[in-house]
Amino acid sequence: MKKIVTFGEIMLRFAPPGHQRFVQTSVLETTYGGAEANVAVSLANFGMDSVFITKLPKHEIGQAALNELRRYGVDTSKIVRGGDRLGVYYLEKGASQRASKVIYDRKKSAIAEAEPGEFDWDAIFKDAGWFHFTGITPALSKNAAAICLQACKKAVDKGIRVSCDINYRKTLWDRDQAREVMSGLMEYVDVCVLNEEDAADVFSISAKNTDINSGILSHEGFIEVAKTLSDRFGFSIVGVTLRSSRTASDNLWSAMLYDGEDACFAAEYPVHIVDRVGAGDAFSAAIIYALMNDYELQKAVDFAAAASCFKHSIEGDFNQISVAEAEALMKGGGSGRVQR
Amino acid sequence: MKKIVTFGEIMLRFAPPGHQRFVQTSVLETTYGGAEANVAVSLANFGMDSVFITKLPKHEIGQAALNELRRYGVDTSKIVRGGDRLGVYYLEKGASQRASKVIYDRKKSAIAEAEPGEFDWDAIFKDAGWFHFTGITPALSKNAAAICLQACKKAVDKGIRVSCDINYRKTLWDRDQAREVMSGLMEYVDVCVLNEEDAADVFSISAKNTDINSGILSHEGFIEVAKTLSDRFGFSIVGVTLRSSRTASDNLWSAMLYDGEDACFAAEYPVHIVDRVGAGDAFSAAIIYALMNDYELQKAVDFAAAASCFKHSIEGDFNQISVAEAEALMKGGGSGRVQR
Amino acid sequence: MKKIVTFGEIMLRFAPPGHQRFVQTSVLETTYGGAEANVAVSLANFGMDSVFITKLPKHEIGQAALNELRRYGVDTSKIVRGGDRLGVYYLEKGASQRASKVIYDRKKSAIAEAEPGEFDWDAIFKDAGWFHFTGITPALSKNAAAICLQACKKAVDKGIRVSCDINYRKTLWDRDQAREVMSGLMEYVDVCVLNEEDAADVFSISAKNTDINSGILSHEGFIEVAKTLSDRFGFSIVGVTLRSSRTASDNLWSAMLYDGEDACFAAEYPVHIVDRVGAGDAFSAAIIYALMNDYELQKAVDFAAAASCFKHSIEGDFNQISVAEAEALMKGGGSGRVQR
Amino acid sequence: MKKIVTFGEIMLRFAPPGHQRFVQTSVLETTYGGAEANVAVSLANFGMDSVFITKLPKHEIGQAALNELRRYGVDTSKIVRGGDRLGVYYLEKGASQRASKVIYDRKKSAIAEAEPGEFDWDAIFKDAGWFHFTGITPALSKNAAAICLQACKKAVDKGIRVSCDINYRKTLWDRDQAREVMSGLMEYVDVCVLNEEDAADVFSISAKNTDINSGILSHEGFIEVAKTLSDRFGFSIVGVTLRSSRTASDNLWSAMLYDGEDACFAAEYPVHIVDRVGAGDAFSAAIIYALMNDYELQKAVDFAAAASCFKHSIEGDFNQISVAEAEALMKGGGSGRVQR
Amino acid sequence: MKKIVTFGEIMLRFAPPGHQRFVQTSVLETTYGGAEANVAVSLANFGMDSVFITKLPKHEIGQAALNELRRYGVDTSKIVRGGDRLGVYYLEKGASQRASKVIYDRKKSAIAEAEPGEFDWDAIFKDAGWFHFTGITPALSKNAAAICLQACKKAVDKGIRVSCDINYRKTLWDRDQAREVMSGLMEYVDVCVLNEEDAADVFSISAKNTDINSGILSHEGFIEVAKTLSDRFGFSIVGVTLRSSRTASDNLWSAMLYDGEDACFAAEYPVHIVDRVGAGDAFSAAIIYALMNDYELQKAVDFAAAASCFKHSIEGDFNQISVAEAEALMKGGGSGRVQR
Amino acid sequence: MKKIVTFGEIMLRFAPPGHQRFVQTSVLETTYGGAEANVAVSLANFGMDSVFITKLPKHEIGQAALNELRRYGVDTSKIVRGGDRLGVYYLEKGASQRASKVIYDRKKSAIAEAEPGEFDWDAIFKDAGWFHFTGITPALSKNAAAICLQACKKAVDKGIRVSCDINYRKTLWDRDQAREVMSGLMEYVDVCVLNEEDAADVFSISAKNTDINSGILSHEGFIEVAKTLSDRFGFSIVGVTLRSSRTASDNLWSAMLYDGEDACFAAEYPVHIVDRVGAGDAFSAAIIYALMNDYELQKAVDFAAAASCFKHSIEGDFNQISVAEAEALMKGGGSGRVQR
Repeated sequence: MKKIVTFGEIMLRFAPPGHQRFVQTSVLETTYGGAEANVAVSLANFGMDSVFITKLPKHEIGQAALNELRRYGVDTSKIVRGGDRLGVYYLEKGASQRASKVIYDRKKSAIAEAEPGEFDWDAIFKDAGWFHFTGITPALSKNAAAICLQACKKAVDKGIRVSCDINYRKTLWDRDQAREVMSGLMEYVDVCVLNEEDAADVFSISAKNTDINSGILSHEGFIEVAKTLSDRFGFSIVGVTLRSSRTASDNLWSAMLYDGEDACFAAEYPVHIVDRVGAGDAFSAAIIYALMNDYELQKAVDFAAAASCFKHSIEGDFNQISVAEAEALMKGGGSGRVQR
Repeated sequence: MKKIVTFGEIMLRFAPPGHQRFVQTSVLETTYGGAEANVAVSLANFGMDSVFITKLPKHEIGQAALNELRRYGVDTSKIVRGGDRLGVYYLEKGASQRASKVIYDRKKSAIAEAEPGEFDWDAIFKDAGWFHFTGITPALSKNAAAICLQACKKAVDKGIRVSCDINYRKTLWDRDQAREVMSGLMEYVDVCVLNEEDAADVFSISAKNTDINSGILSHEGFIEVAKTLSDRFGFSIVGVTLRSSRTASDNLWSAMLYDGEDACFAAEYPVHIVDRVGAGDAFSAAIIYALMNDYELQKAVDFAAAASCFKHSIEGDFNQISVAEAEALMKGGGSGRVQR
Repeated sequence: MKKIVTFGEIMLRFAPPGHQRFVQTSVLETTYGGAEANVAVSLANFGMDSVFITKLPKHEIGQAALNELRRYGVDTSKIVRGGDRLGVYYLEKGASQRASKVIYDRKKSAIAEAEPGEFDWDAIFKDAGWFHFTGITPALSKNAAAICLQACKKAVDKGIRVSCDINYRKTLWDRDQAREVMSGLMEYVDVCVLNEEDAADVFSISAKNTDINSGILSHEGFIEVAKTLSDRFGFSIVGVTLRSSRTASDNLWSAMLYDGEDACFAAEYPVHIVDRVGAGDAFSAAIIYALMNDYELQKAVDFAAAASCFKHSIEGDFNQISVAEAEALMKGGGSGRVQR
Repeated sequence: MKKIVTFGEIMLRFAPPGHQRFVQTSVLETTYGGAEANVAVSLANFGMDSVFITKLPKHEIGQAALNELRRYGVDTSKIVRGGDRLGVYYLEKGASQRASKVIYDRKKSAIAEAEPGEFDWDAIFKDAGWFHFTGITPALSKNAAAICLQACKKAVDKGIRVSCDINYRKTLWDRDQAREVMSGLMEYVDVCVLNEEDAADVFSISAKNTDINSGILSHEGFIEVAKTLSDRFGFSIVGVTLRSSRTASDNLWSAMLYDGEDACFAAEYPVHIVDRVGAGDAFSAAIIYALMNDYELQKAVDFAAAASCFKHSIEGDFNQISVAEAEALMKGGGSGRVQR
Repeated sequence: MKKIVTFGEIMLRFAPPGHQRFVQTSVLETTYGGAEANVAVSLANFGMDSVFITKLPKHEIGQAALNELRRYGVDTSKIVRGGDRLGVYYLEKGASQRASKVIYDRKKSAIAEAEPGEFDWDAIFKDAGWFHFTGITPALSKNAAAICLQACKKAVDKGIRVSCDINYRKTLWDRDQAREVMSGLMEYVDVCVLNEEDAADVFSISAKNTDINSGILSHEGFIEVAKTLSDRFGFSIVGVTLRSSRTASDNLWSAMLYDGEDACFAAEYPVHIVDRVGAGDAFSAAIIYALMNDYELQKAVDFAAAASCFKHSIEGDFNQISVAEAEALMKGGGSGRVQR
Repeated sequence: MKKIVTFGEIMLRFAPPGHQRFVQTSVLETTYGGAEANVAVSLANFGMDSVFITKLPKHEIGQAALNELRRYGVDTSKIVRGGDRLGVYYLEKGASQRASKVIYDRKKSAIAEAEPGEFDWDAIFKDAGWFHFTGITPALSKNAAAICLQACKKAVDKGIRVSCDINYRKTLWDRDQAREVMSGLMEYVDVCVLNEEDAADVFSISAKNTDINSGILSHEGFIEVAKTLSDRFGFSIVGVTLRSSRTASDNLWSAMLYDGEDACFAAEYPVHIVDRVGAGDAFSAAIIYALMNDYELQKAVDFAAAASCFKHSIEGDFNQISVAEAEALMKGGGSGRVQR
């Protein structure tokens, strides 16, 4: 099967153990993550040929990040080496009424400072069939946005399918900046993934009868959002993750897929949260897998909701789930009996 | 704003990691806590000038306890140094049907053995506007009870408001001893905090229609208890924490505040428990904060219930919560969405 | 009181910390367990004279396993030393929709390779009143099955009561092998313990109206199963554990005891799972304790359900629960209030 | 072979990990130790029937200490249960020029508060051939000293050989108290063990030409000390450990044994220190083993120096060394090649 | 005694546990450090009124750094809050022939981006008697250099004594930049501290007959260097640390102090290294302490060499040593006998 | 450059933390290793195209081992998947006089049970220039020996250079078995690596004037050994590691290389040991690197001794060292100064 190229940032993530707060901990546990790297690893775990493109410093901390990708079978041979620093983020895991907190320290990272000329997209896209990025990457810097645009154009030229997770981050840019840049990129995008807040934040498209904070999500509202987006930007597929956040410990999780005509909804899973970071990325990866494997719409959303449901039960940013596991869950196997 | 002086004990706390039992663990995690120290730290976390008074050994273990208070901004400059040992307690965290267990090893601690002459209350109460202690301190020893009485008298003389959390501990003294000593101290107390069991244990005042073990708590019963206490001892404010313990993993948490006329109840929070030790202390600290900042009765109990609700989600004895966080929760923000 | 002899395997258990998956962890936490060793330790924790029989390598890893049994007061003096290796198993703890996983590496262990002539059952059974084994032991190897048979015969000769937990493990043998060997052993067994799947797997006896995966368990169906087993093999007592697995984090737990005439059911406990491995073994141990102490049928099943309910809240294979704790729970004390 | 009864205290030991100082650590690692418990475990590790006598609280912390002894095969069946607390000590491990620090919190422990009537020495000494205690036990309290005297008298009556390690601790009593009490006990002692400081501290007998702080130890001086002690108290054997402390990381270690006529010295080992606590106790245990097995004087001191040399390379108070290992070292096998 | 004001950066430090390398670790241990913060903490540990000035982000990571200073008693009330990020550095500890490695990620930190107008030096220097900074601070950014200059001028105006540790870091600036900026600052400095490399790197003044890599250090050469510096910049005191690095595990450590006339050398300590980061800072702190307490030159260098010798045995950047401990070592107490 | 193919076993390694013994630990730290895997990783760390061939179970524990190789850039695409179990070994790290201990549990591992037909050597050797194995692999089983022979023949057929590290393990086979099998394989080997014991154990060729246990190694003796081997088997290169084991904490390390005419010796390094497992494998890898890069004999042995010297300072089996680091050490840079 053709390769999937993902472009973006991988960061070093520091989190206090268990449910400790930042100000009380004397230990910060160490993993790696980033929206696009999460997609790349999840795809490798699905057995796909997954290529991750970024820029990493030459020093050992950069090497350790590269090693972590390589450990899960991601092709890192096209990663550009250089620059000063690896982006960092700090995560405090919430519980019960206390929300999780993320503090980013990713400015001036090697990838944010990278130059468009450093990436040889012809070589990168050799044997590729899919290109994925998220709305975080163009938010990193003007250079990063330019590289995204460059990659999108090249991909479309080569007949490579392009997907994008909107992934709006208000600490990286404001809504106006996001709308302007993202709108420009959307013309190259064929498959668009977003969550219940992104459409409103970036494109001022709100689902009716939905109050995110109260956890009320309206199916009809989201179909309307997807249709509006699809009409405006010509997406062939729009995927939406649907989260009802009751407390930091327990959520409901589902998803919708819209193909311009029909909307299919997945089952709703009650999730007891181990680590919810990366659930959206797990969803994107599963959508890419499903579409590359020609799943029908309902099967695709069922698979993607199941795969990303699992992410909530897994430590770290990366979704450590196989295709077989996701398929077993989408067929009803969520009772959690011990597998011996 | 004026300083808040809290007097009592800080102990070294040892707990097996996770949900291990004492007899199986080979590690004991180390933090510090004690009812009064918890109040002092919580107030410092609210940004108040918080002064903690105790006696600590001169050796490095005593110094480490002092350092932990200092780390959170508590004024430790008036702590008396000397004596033999720091009190210790062992905590085994429960789960599901298995209750948490506490084993105290606090006898003969430096503060229990302290002499009344060692504390210069005139110096300690300089610029102070509030004095807080709990029913644990006078239970430590006759000396400790005498020092409490000394401090209460001096506080009242100086026009400093006095609060007390009844905090009955049956392993420290029996009900008769507690009733006699606490009744004597209550005449100096203006704000009284207690939980659903204390009034019955210490003052033989029971809430009607309430069965603590079955988790049935009657609002009317608690109003009656507060009124009886208020009438008997002349408290201007009585605060009661209301816990429905369903399992060691999940509780309901609420609170009541009574001002001699009106009783206000806070919302009831379903809490998924990380560490419930110190929830009552978090409530006391929040009541003190609310009253020093002239909150109205309903707002005060809402704030205090929210602040102490958070304590259940936080490791260790100390409530690591800011005023802004507690206010956000009392306004409804408990859905636990990630804050980026 | 007479001694209880348990025969089987103790393994070294490796598990990633918390909810990490095998492929992402860089640490494997270390404990010991095995169906029969779990019963032996649980009985020692109940204060019984508990003797564990196995074969362990002479090297330090074998010694460490023996030490762990000794730590909890199990009599290890009759354990045979020799052979090459200690069996190992790997446990990945599930959460939410993700099930726990067990990978066994127990082939060719010292006990699986042991010879019948190595065990002096006359000496072992001195002062013994009970012999217990599980269906795992004869599944280890032909030799192990032969030793089981030898032990059963000797026990019956000496008037020692014999109990067996069916404990079918499909990775050790297939259903036909299990049926043949287990049927031969059942003639010596007086007390039979099994779970909701074992009767169907091994003896092709299914509870009607029960769908294990959907968590629907029919009381009538299990009475029928117990009666059929009792009639076929002459058991005086049949105990069945009843688990409704909703997710890997939350289960319902109950049990039934049948004495050939009456069936008694215990209360159903909603359990929030810390570690569910060994719950069935905790049940067996409690049944043995109850019967050796002449508990009536209802009290016996209440005690055994309560004791094994607790296992779900305890890390590791061994049930670290006293008789007093189990009795408190069976009398209703599961609200989890802190015990100070 | 006859049993060896050791009487004294076992404490919970807390130590910062690695070389952290008390005031900076947020973790305290947990083990158990105490001079006499160390001897009991070391003897069990040599394969001897080792009985430890103390008093331990009934609560789970007391049980955990008992379990730790049981884990290594020490007979704990005669331990008296009751009292309030387990003694605690804090250990900060030194390195290079920085010395290790010990802070004791052992006052009012269960054994210090025990009453003479609680120990049934006739039952305890059944089948015993040796009784050992150290100078720490009578220093704990007057009661503890009385129990020691009681035990010594009973042992001598029964023809049980008595050994004592002088083990002077200046934080428990002063030199005058020690001299008075220890002199009274010495009349029952047959084998006396001490280090390079004890004789001077307790009996005012100094080795000539020796400056402990500078690490200069004179063989002749120690022979003179041993002879003086032997003459004064009628010891048949005097054992002396000889430590040259160069830094907290590197010491020289040797020992002398004197039988009233001859003095034999062991080889001097350069030790790179992992944990030096309990080296003297390891020496005592090895002397007891050697004498019970009728080793000649030179072989006995060689064995004891080798066994206790190993203690410096082992974490925790207990000497985890077999007879075979100690014998291999005394025969020259200290080059540390990997044993596969 | 007057306050000591230290100005500079505190960073979050990440280090693999033990001797693991960056590329193999899955844990990074977390502490805080920075040349000037290390001096401030060491002075607080000496019991001095130590004030640390920096700029820290308002978020919880910034707060955690502030808390760590506060824990050791440093006055943090004048720290400016704001800016984006806390500087970070990664430390890999060497062993044997393998050197330690430091990777800085401190660009664009809050203090590097601070503006001169943010610091109210009049308020900061209230009751101050000493001002200390190092050559790292002006290397952070032009702004930081300007703030240093501003502070130096203000200090000299107020009669506050100024000390500077040259501390050349080639990754922050090149030699020419350093020479220019540092030469301008030196005119305000009265006490100059440097190591065996700094004078050559920054001021092109080399000690004769010294080859740092081979570990040969010439006393005469260093006196000449100190005299040259003293003559050129008018320092009243020049302190030099003298390290012979044999391997990453073992060094020799000594120091020299020169007062314009005489040069005094301390004893040379063989150090077995636990963590050598911050040894120079420990030396600076001890020089400041010694001079503020009017130690004579020889006593001052003996004290400072001893205090900083200890740093090699202590985990983390901060020197956790009291005056009493340093004095005991300078009087010869380095044999490392256990202190009970 | 051409690929290097290494064939053998990778095991899961369990070791108590620090210097704990097996019988006292409650944690076993987890890494991966095995003589041939160590060579493969070390070569990948040198930047070579390193291919590792083995057979690994399909389950997650097998996958985790594969991931660990992949993490360091080893090509794992030709690894055969299947079989029951991953080999395991237990390592107890020694210190001072106490030697390290290894307990193997590697029998019946997937690679030991593999069949010759499972490996497609034509595909494996595509683009390969070197084949390496050690004497451990043929010792695993007859099948493994047959596969080795098969691979050797194929390699020689294809003109691929073959190297072998004798690596005698007495727990896997006896000397006679080893001599017979290894002699047959040696005819295909061009470069032979061994340590000071192997020649005597396997080929009965002893170095004169050498006593391994006393640490006396004779240069002339080893030249004689190398010459004898070279003459007997036609090796073009013989490499010998030279270890003087003084204690388990400190060794001397050097090496010799002989090319049939000349013998070159490397410098002797005093190593302070962090983890000495894999030093010989690090040496083999460095020899292969040096020879593939056409280093002269002296430079080759200098490089290999330096690279493997570093292994003693690195945790785990794998040598985490770059070519640049090894070259810096061979040029004299072993003083361990911090690299910032």
